Amino acid sequence: MARQERAIRTRRAILEAAGAVFDEHGYTSTTIAMVLERAEVTKGALYFHFPSKESLAQAVLDEQVPFGAVPEQACKLQEIIDMTFVVAQRLLTDPLLRGSVRLTVDQATPPGVDHTGPFVKWAERLTVLMDQADRQGELLPTVNHRDTVELLVGGFAGIQLMSRALTNRADLAYRISVLWSHILPSIAVPGLLLGLDSKADRGLRVLSAVPVP
Amino acid sequence: MARQERAIRTRRAILEAAGAVFDEHGYTSTTIAMVLERAEVTKGALYFHFPSKESLAQAVLDEQVPFGAVPEQACKLQEIIDMTFVVAQRLLTDPLLRGSVRLTVDQATPPGVDHTGPFVKWAERLTVLMDQADRQGELLPTVNHRDTVELLVGGFAGIQLMSRALTNRADLAYRISVLWSHILPSIAVPGLLLGLDSKADRGLRVLSAVPVP
Repeated sequence: MARQERAIRTRRAILEAAGAVFDEHGYTSTTIAMVLERAEVTKGALYFHFPSKESLAQAVLDEQVPFGAVPEQACKLQEIIDMTFVVAQRLLTDPLLRGSVRLTVDQATPPGVDHTGPFVKWAERLTVLMDQADRQGELLPTVNHRDTVELLVGGFAGIQLMSRALTNRADLAYRISVLWSHILPSIAVPGLLLGLDSKADRGLRVLSAVPVP
Repeated sequence: MARQERAIRTRRAILEAAGAVFDEHGYTSTTIAMVLERAEVTKGALYFHFPSKESLAQAVLDEQVPFGAVPEQACKLQEIIDMTFVVAQRLLTDPLLRGSVRLTVDQATPPGVDHTGPFVKWAERLTVLMDQADRQGELLPTVNHRDTVELLVGGFAGIQLMSRALTNRADLAYRISVLWSHILPSIAVPGLLLGLDSKADRGLRVLSAVPVP
C-alpha cells in the first residue's frame, strides 16, 4: 500500500471513530483519548491529521453532505426526495454520519467549530437541484426555492431528532414520507405528483441499486 | 406573603435560573452551583425543591408545553397556528423556555431524564385541537391527525434549531410562516385557506391581545 493511500485510510479510520464517539457522548464529554482507543491508531497519527478536538469535530461536520450522494434522476425533485431518504437510511447504519448530525444539532459545539456549516451546505446542494427542477418545469410558479429548501433542511433536522428520541430512528423513513406527502402538493406541478416516489422504503430501494464500492 | 406563595416564587426563580443556565451551557456542563448563583437562593432552598440536577432538568422540561398557551379561537386550525407562532415569539425572550427546548433537543440529557416528554406532550396537546378542527369540518378527509401533528412538532424542533444556529432565532417567525404556507394546502379545506392567518407577525399580534398577568 502506498504511503499516501495508507494516510487516507488512517484519516478515515480516525474520522469514523470520532463520529462514533461524538454520537455517543457529544462534543463536551468526548476526549481525544476516547477517539484514540476506538480508532486503534497512535497518538502521533491522530495529531498528524487533527491537531485538536475542534479540528476533529470540524472534519466530522465537513463529512456530512457527501452522505447525500444519490444516483442522478431525470426528475430533479425525485433526486431531492431520494437524498432525504438515503440520508435517513444511512443514519441507521453509519456512526460517522450520526456523529456529524449530533454535532450539527448540539448547541454544545464550541464557537471555534462552525456547526452552521452542514445547514448551509445542505441548503446550497438542494438549491442547485431545485433550480434544475425549476428549469425543467417541475415546480409550481409560486415556489420560493430558498424558502422551500431551508424548510426541508430544518424540518429534516427536527424530524430525525424526534425520531431518534422516540424510536431510535426506527420510524425515520416513515416520518420523511409524511413530510413529503404534506409538502409536495405545494411545490410540484400537478402532473408530476403521481409519478414521484416518496414511499418510506424509497431509501432502501435507491441504495440497493447503487453498486457496492 | 404567605409561606406557600413564597415557596412557589422561590421554586419559579430556581426554574428560571436553571433554564437560563441549561440554555447557555447545556446539561453536561451545568452545575448546581451555577444555578444557585443565578437564582440567588440558598442551597437549602434549592435542594428542598430539587434534590438533584436530574430533577431540575426534568422540571425545566415539564414547564415547556404551558408556553404554548394561546387565546381560544373559533377555528381550531388557527389556534394550532397561533401556538407555533407564540412559542416562536416566546423563545426570543424567555430563558426558561429556551433552556427547556435545549434539553429536549440535546442528546446529552441523561437516561434518568425523560427528554422525549415535550415531543409527546406537544403532540398530545395538538392532537386534541386537530380532533376538534376535524369535527368542525376544517380538515381535508385525507389528513391523518397523528402524522400531521408529529410532522409539526418535529419540524418545529428542527426549524427553530436551524434558525438559532444561523440567526440566533431572528428569522424564526418567518420560517414558521414558510412551514405553514407549505403544509396548510395539504390539510385545510380550501374554503378555510384564505381566512387563516399564518403571517410572520402572527405571534406578536396574538401576544399583544393577551392581558399582561
